[in-house]
Amino acid sequence: MRPSKRAADELRAVTLERSVSKHAEGSCLVKFGDTHVLCTASLEERVPPWLRGQQRGWVTAEYGMLPRATGDRMRREASVGKQSGRTQEIQRLIGRSLRAVVDLEALGECQISVDCDVIQADGGTRTAAITGAWVALRDCIEWMRAREMVKKQVLKDHIAAISCGIYNGTPVLDLDYAEDSNAQTDSNFVMTGSGGIVEIQGTAEGAPFSEEEFGQLLGLAKTGIGRLVDLQKMSIS
Amino acid sequence: MRPSKRAADELRAVTLERSVSKHAEGSCLVKFGDTHVLCTASLEERVPPWLRGQQRGWVTAEYGMLPRATGDRMRREASVGKQSGRTQEIQRLIGRSLRAVVDLEALGECQISVDCDVIQADGGTRTAAITGAWVALRDCIEWMRAREMVKKQVLKDHIAAISCGIYNGTPVLDLDYAEDSNAQTDSNFVMTGSGGIVEIQGTAEGAPFSEEEFGQLLGLAKTGIGRLVDLQKMSIS
Amino acid sequence: MRPSKRAADELRAVTLERSVSKHAEGSCLVKFGDTHVLCTASLEERVPPWLRGQQRGWVTAEYGMLPRATGDRMRREASVGKQSGRTQEIQRLIGRSLRAVVDLEALGECQISVDCDVIQADGGTRTAAITGAWVALRDCIEWMRAREMVKKQVLKDHIAAISCGIYNGTPVLDLDYAEDSNAQTDSNFVMTGSGGIVEIQGTAEGAPFSEEEFGQLLGLAKTGIGRLVDLQKMSIS
Amino acid sequence: MRPSKRAADELRAVTLERSVSKHAEGSCLVKFGDTHVLCTASLEERVPPWLRGQQRGWVTAEYGMLPRATGDRMRREASVGKQSGRTQEIQRLIGRSLRAVVDLEALGECQISVDCDVIQADGGTRTAAITGAWVALRDCIEWMRAREMVKKQVLKDHIAAISCGIYNGTPVLDLDYAEDSNAQTDSNFVMTGSGGIVEIQGTAEGAPFSEEEFGQLLGLAKTGIGRLVDLQKMSIS
Amino acid sequence: MRPSKRAADELRAVTLERSVSKHAEGSCLVKFGDTHVLCTASLEERVPPWLRGQQRGWVTAEYGMLPRATGDRMRREASVGKQSGRTQEIQRLIGRSLRAVVDLEALGECQISVDCDVIQADGGTRTAAITGAWVALRDCIEWMRAREMVKKQVLKDHIAAISCGIYNGTPVLDLDYAEDSNAQTDSNFVMTGSGGIVEIQGTAEGAPFSEEEFGQLLGLAKTGIGRLVDLQKMSIS
Amino acid sequence: MRPSKRAADELRAVTLERSVSKHAEGSCLVKFGDTHVLCTASLEERVPPWLRGQQRGWVTAEYGMLPRATGDRMRREASVGKQSGRTQEIQRLIGRSLRAVVDLEALGECQISVDCDVIQADGGTRTAAITGAWVALRDCIEWMRAREMVKKQVLKDHIAAISCGIYNGTPVLDLDYAEDSNAQTDSNFVMTGSGGIVEIQGTAEGAPFSEEEFGQLLGLAKTGIGRLVDLQKMSIS
Repeated sequence: MRPSKRAADELRAVTLERSVSKHAEGSCLVKFGDTHVLCTASLEERVPPWLRGQQRGWVTAEYGMLPRATGDRMRREASVGKQSGRTQEIQRLIGRSLRAVVDLEALGECQISVDCDVIQADGGTRTAAITGAWVALRDCIEWMRAREMVKKQVLKDHIAAISCGIYNGTPVLDLDYAEDSNAQTDSNFVMTGSGGIVEIQGTAEGAPFSEEEFGQLLGLAKTGIGRLVDLQKMSIS
Repeated sequence: MRPSKRAADELRAVTLERSVSKHAEGSCLVKFGDTHVLCTASLEERVPPWLRGQQRGWVTAEYGMLPRATGDRMRREASVGKQSGRTQEIQRLIGRSLRAVVDLEALGECQISVDCDVIQADGGTRTAAITGAWVALRDCIEWMRAREMVKKQVLKDHIAAISCGIYNGTPVLDLDYAEDSNAQTDSNFVMTGSGGIVEIQGTAEGAPFSEEEFGQLLGLAKTGIGRLVDLQKMSIS
Repeated sequence: MRPSKRAADELRAVTLERSVSKHAEGSCLVKFGDTHVLCTASLEERVPPWLRGQQRGWVTAEYGMLPRATGDRMRREASVGKQSGRTQEIQRLIGRSLRAVVDLEALGECQISVDCDVIQADGGTRTAAITGAWVALRDCIEWMRAREMVKKQVLKDHIAAISCGIYNGTPVLDLDYAEDSNAQTDSNFVMTGSGGIVEIQGTAEGAPFSEEEFGQLLGLAKTGIGRLVDLQKMSIS
Repeated sequence: MRPSKRAADELRAVTLERSVSKHAEGSCLVKFGDTHVLCTASLEERVPPWLRGQQRGWVTAEYGMLPRATGDRMRREASVGKQSGRTQEIQRLIGRSLRAVVDLEALGECQISVDCDVIQADGGTRTAAITGAWVALRDCIEWMRAREMVKKQVLKDHIAAISCGIYNGTPVLDLDYAEDSNAQTDSNFVMTGSGGIVEIQGTAEGAPFSEEEFGQLLGLAKTGIGRLVDLQKMSIS
Repeated sequence: MRPSKRAADELRAVTLERSVSKHAEGSCLVKFGDTHVLCTASLEERVPPWLRGQQRGWVTAEYGMLPRATGDRMRREASVGKQSGRTQEIQRLIGRSLRAVVDLEALGECQISVDCDVIQADGGTRTAAITGAWVALRDCIEWMRAREMVKKQVLKDHIAAISCGIYNGTPVLDLDYAEDSNAQTDSNFVMTGSGGIVEIQGTAEGAPFSEEEFGQLLGLAKTGIGRLVDLQKMSIS
Repeated sequence: MRPSKRAADELRAVTLERSVSKHAEGSCLVKFGDTHVLCTASLEERVPPWLRGQQRGWVTAEYGMLPRATGDRMRREASVGKQSGRTQEIQRLIGRSLRAVVDLEALGECQISVDCDVIQADGGTRTAAITGAWVALRDCIEWMRAREMVKKQVLKDHIAAISCGIYNGTPVLDLDYAEDSNAQTDSNFVMTGSGGIVEIQGTAEGAPFSEEEFGQLLGLAKTGIGRLVDLQKMSIS
């Protein structure tokens, strides 16, 4: 039995609220249960120095957490003076995931920066962030299309992410904090709307896991991501 | 005529929503029109080193802004590696303002950290932050009282803040961004519920201002803060 | 009775010694009693990036304190690796104050950097710095005029600053350290030679203050700044 | 055909040279072809603050690269002033991988820090580092055992790592730089001597990959890691 | 002919003004011509962590330069966020030089921090700093002796420093900036009152120098330091 | 008797192994006994900003130490976030020493960066680094010559370095760590192949030293550097 009473393959209540920012070209407040992440997509005219003059754009992501998003207050990274290794690892993951479904040439010489800020955390912040970031990114591209700044298809597919893990010996989908902190195995999957795998990260927290177990987690992830992509489609329709 | 059509002494729509955080001991989402600040009060058992063993507590504040809270995306301070002078100035102001109404001995040897994070900015973020921070701080102290961690009266009074300025030659209350960026004079007032002045900051952006003009701004501030304190009282009743 | 035996409206002995630096285009060693600040104005040909190509100049200020300027040795900010919030707050104040009396278009596309370094501190370092910085800035502009680098009137007025506070229940002018560390209310005023207000900062250290008390402090400040402007005039005549 | 003429499931020439450091308690110079990593294990008596007094030890890892380990000289991280996101991601991975086979209670209250410094890079530095780090760690623990600092079994198993990827449409084992920079999919596997999976990281560099392709990569990895564990066994026998 | 018309073995006008700081336990404003350095010695009760409990004291030094001490304004190190290599090299030299004449056991478990801040620079700042720092240090120790904080002889000897160089082919003493920036060879010597050598630093700026030339520089240095020690004696008598 | 049984004027076993890096234009692994330093010379097309457009090149050096190069593990500078004063002092010395024998105009508008990384330390790392760096630099220049990137003579002479010290009252050559940590006087000499002096650094660790003692150290250094230059010649022949 999961602490949340969910079935093994049951997502938390997921909502995707668009246009939550007065300023951003695209924005989405994504909730996976009590995990709430504000995603904003900002169009910037400059591209990174190494990309200049190549007629291609770039999509990048930054990730942050409010100090009291968590059970214990964490020190503010701006005050510490640097981003933790965990933060950098997550924002690199989000950026790679989004770029996997963007045609950077069709985007043209500009950069879209997607900020994913965790307002409240209850496990799975990186997967919620990727799922919501896609919506913000999509709306930013539509904003550009409305102004004829892009002509061709820029977004090639959906992208969404979910965590899976082995909790009390059972593979389960979409771990919340209570499960995550006790899971034997923790894994994150990022997949496209058409089922292609973009990122797999699996970590044994305690005992190593077997190939068979990993196959079960991957199976759960496919189910979960399918549902998330459906929710993305509903949110923009 | 103000861009927002408000009367010279008219506040923006102000709301104070409590208990918006699953984790924090006290929290308040404060809105002054399109300026939205999430305030969380976190109880910490440690006090600053210089205060140890003195049977007194401390209240401190940190301030941050999400990168796309503003019209143009700003660089994330955690990524830059330091907090700007403006950020530090504001969080020092919030901390001083809150401490002015707290009996630190009655609080006992612990620290309350109030985080004020600007989700969306449209002028007046520091005054909204102070006004909302008081509510979060109050709920944190009530949380402690319910657990018999404090016995005596800790909060001595309300504290709230408002900006005033001279816009198009007219003294006006509660400047939004459109006014703030064009005001000749910008000032912030922090006052208690009983009308005592805790902080005054006045800056001539263009031409210096006269003593008479400053008196008019102070008059507006008294009116505005009176209304904010009423709203605080309603929010906690 | 004040610790220094001064009357409530009496400044400390103030001196403004010009041309104390072999290298700087303008310089002034300002003393407010035992508070000694070395102000140097440096002409630099570059302007900040955001001002390039606009035919306008810029005046900026930096503030520092020698480690043993104070009663206890403080850690050197260059060694700590960053400037404190207090330092940044003060140098922003000095810069804004000076710019309030400078015609930046008449200055032309260059920057004057005014460094205010506290050699010895006994309270009121920021007000002494502003008062002396005006003299250094003025001499730098005269240096430019002698070389025909500026033609029009660049300095529009004098600028000077003074602190006031409520000490033992009495409003007093120009607090030294002994008074400052025991004052109920601490305020700083920056005004022009013609009596216009440029900056007001008032802080209740203990109990909030009333509008009437603040009016008394402002009255003292006007008297004090009038005298400081007279001393500036004498120093450059 | 692979640039190196290797078969799809063929490792590069791998060597594990022990006791290469005069000072370290355990050390290993590991070579995967032209990728050379110096691993040193240092016994330290202190543990991280959050572990004090718990009768348990800790194993941590740091990763670095000499500036000219690569084809183009990279800026030295000590000179830049911070470690890149990539560096932090890798050293977190190495530390987690090693801890997966260590009985931290049997280690006792001390810390082993394993430094993995890339002397020369040609792809696969993180997998070489993990494979060599195990040897250095093992020798450090034997050093402790010889001094009766540990009594029980501390190392529970071997740990080794290898990369796999899809190069020119074919799944291949142990990518060198020429392959890595052109692979469609890049993945790293960390497994124990008994075949348990500890870490899986798979990233689509271009097109997403399928579940079937991922299964092929995992199969290759199992073969490769089996061989690496055999080499570890030979090196310490 | 030297730019300053001095003879080859002639020092600039040197003055050592004591007790220039209201706060420091010992202080000296040293001038070598237009090079002015403020030296303050601060007694601190704490010693560095690695020295605790050893009944011995420590003497350390920090060096700084005001931004406009030089012909062109330099960036403030506190604003840059770190001390330059040159600054660190000089403050390490000053510290070592002072410790060479201090009996650290006789000092007892405390630390004296000597700050050397260059108010105005015209070459030879490090040698002026060492020469003045000795006077500040001596007065700090006398301050302690007057309070019976030290009993035994703490200062074992005088210490002073001077630069020498080869200018236009001629060995000269005490280079000012005009000479220093054109010298073929630049060297600094630190010696005790009894003629012992504590530090020698010689650098060929252009062509290497010969053993004979170096002998001439050393000879000049001995003369110059003898005079500086005489001046120190006069200043404290 | 020296701990290593060497005669007073005897170097440790010195080897200079060239072409140890697959990537660098020039490289040398230098060993002075148990002190091992990897020197790589990297050709970079950019020059420092202040040198642009002057048809001259630049040679710079960086120095680092692996964390467990020493008896106790040191904190990694990249992790601390800055280079120590010692590191900066040494890399400035290496750079100056190399530039003393390079014709920067003949090099043309490019920069050679020489990285000296201490793999294992046993005293004398800076002198080994300089001696090996010359070989790496020389091979980098030959690499350029083979590609007709330089035409004229760029290297004007050999450069090598050695330490000397007074150990148990006797002047000795090439101190290892056991001697270095107990020497009364520590000095480093950098000289050219033709015997010119480029750098002299002498420090009294305990009692000051006399002019005569310093002469003896210089004599030893000349002998030692002569042998090092012979070894350099053999290594490149």
